[in-house]
Amino acid sequence: MAIPVVDEAGRIIGVRTVDDVIDAIVEEHPEDVQRFGGMEALDEPYTQIGFFSMIRKRGGWLSILLIGEMFTATVMKHFELELSKALVLTLFIPLIMSSGGNSGSQATSLIIRAMALDEVKLKDWWRVALRELPSGIALGAILGLLGVLRVLIWQYMGIGGGYGVHYGLVAAVVGVALLGVVTFGSLAGSMLPFVLRRIGFDPASASAPFVATLVDVTALSIYFYVALFFLRGTLL
Amino acid sequence: MAIPVVDEAGRIIGVRTVDDVIDAIVEEHPEDVQRFGGMEALDEPYTQIGFFSMIRKRGGWLSILLIGEMFTATVMKHFELELSKALVLTLFIPLIMSSGGNSGSQATSLIIRAMALDEVKLKDWWRVALRELPSGIALGAILGLLGVLRVLIWQYMGIGGGYGVHYGLVAAVVGVALLGVVTFGSLAGSMLPFVLRRIGFDPASASAPFVATLVDVTALSIYFYVALFFLRGTLL
Repeated sequence: MAIPVVDEAGRIIGVRTVDDVIDAIVEEHPEDVQRFGGMEALDEPYTQIGFFSMIRKRGGWLSILLIGEMFTATVMKHFELELSKALVLTLFIPLIMSSGGNSGSQATSLIIRAMALDEVKLKDWWRVALRELPSGIALGAILGLLGVLRVLIWQYMGIGGGYGVHYGLVAAVVGVALLGVVTFGSLAGSMLPFVLRRIGFDPASASAPFVATLVDVTALSIYFYVALFFLRGTLL
Repeated sequence: MAIPVVDEAGRIIGVRTVDDVIDAIVEEHPEDVQRFGGMEALDEPYTQIGFFSMIRKRGGWLSILLIGEMFTATVMKHFELELSKALVLTLFIPLIMSSGGNSGSQATSLIIRAMALDEVKLKDWWRVALRELPSGIALGAILGLLGVLRVLIWQYMGIGGGYGVHYGLVAAVVGVALLGVVTFGSLAGSMLPFVLRRIGFDPASASAPFVATLVDVTALSIYFYVALFFLRGTLL
């Protein structure tokens, strides 16, 4: 129930009890939640840490994330012509992006948990991939269906003026894009902890920002390519 | 180091040791990370849970989040006229939205940690608000500056064709919108755990999706109102 702490000469200089262990676990616990929320852990209590010390710790992470997300502006610029022709496409960009991010962070947190509990090991990555691919497709199909229903219901009820004569195609683009984005998000989100662990990072502390940036940028690209496929000859 | 487990008649039917307690803490620990990642905790190991059981647990959360995010399409539709006049505005929508979401989830995880460690109590909400307002403004100013630099550097280097003759105004819109969005995100993200706890929810399990939806929808609105203020008479 207790272990001695000794110096280099083997003399006892202290003792650690099982209570200390429990205290340490409980204290460390929310630190991981915090890291997953995207920031360096504060060394001091929230109520006592200095203003500039806190800004430095929080601002560093937020800046890195912002710089990562700047790639989304590059992708948007790349498809500016398509956006100008089919403005209706812009309406669903936030919806599509956030669904990709949500499915990605869900899959990541799932795998981080499974890794922490030793349910999956590094060599199991392909087993997880084979599981996440059909899961992602099933989840994507559910969300895609909801997206299609959103477009059709708003169209038929005339809420906000509707989505134009090609609303059926718009619904198809939203549905198929959600299917693709959620599938990619689940797969990428589940593989990232393996990649991070393989190259020596702690998945729990580094995954969230990587998933967010990777999935957001890819989600936009998937959406625009799906739109090109369905709308070429009509809106595009 | 151990406590007895008794039935209704007071007869001992088992014993719980301190080891059981440690095991329980360690097991529960990643569950919270998982909840924060936006899903109901799986009762069974990832490798053993049935396919449909997993889809149901994951799909429920993702569907709720999708339905919440549908408000973003409503906001976008509301500003469709402005978008059609100033298409350059669409380019930065993902950037602005994700910065709001990131600052919101950062503030939320910070306060959840502080609550878990009993550093802040329910009645301290106004103390936290008074702390988060200047923090949010400082963080927003940093990100806003980065956003302005992004627009100006790309413009001067002519990357992707630039942002038109009013690029200075576009840079101002991006910078001020980031300032507003990050300030709102930090404030809303830090207050939400108090609200959830006050109405009887566990902040750790419910905050992430609420923050995401609330901040995304508000971030879009802030961005468009800032654009209206700066671009009226030129682009709008």
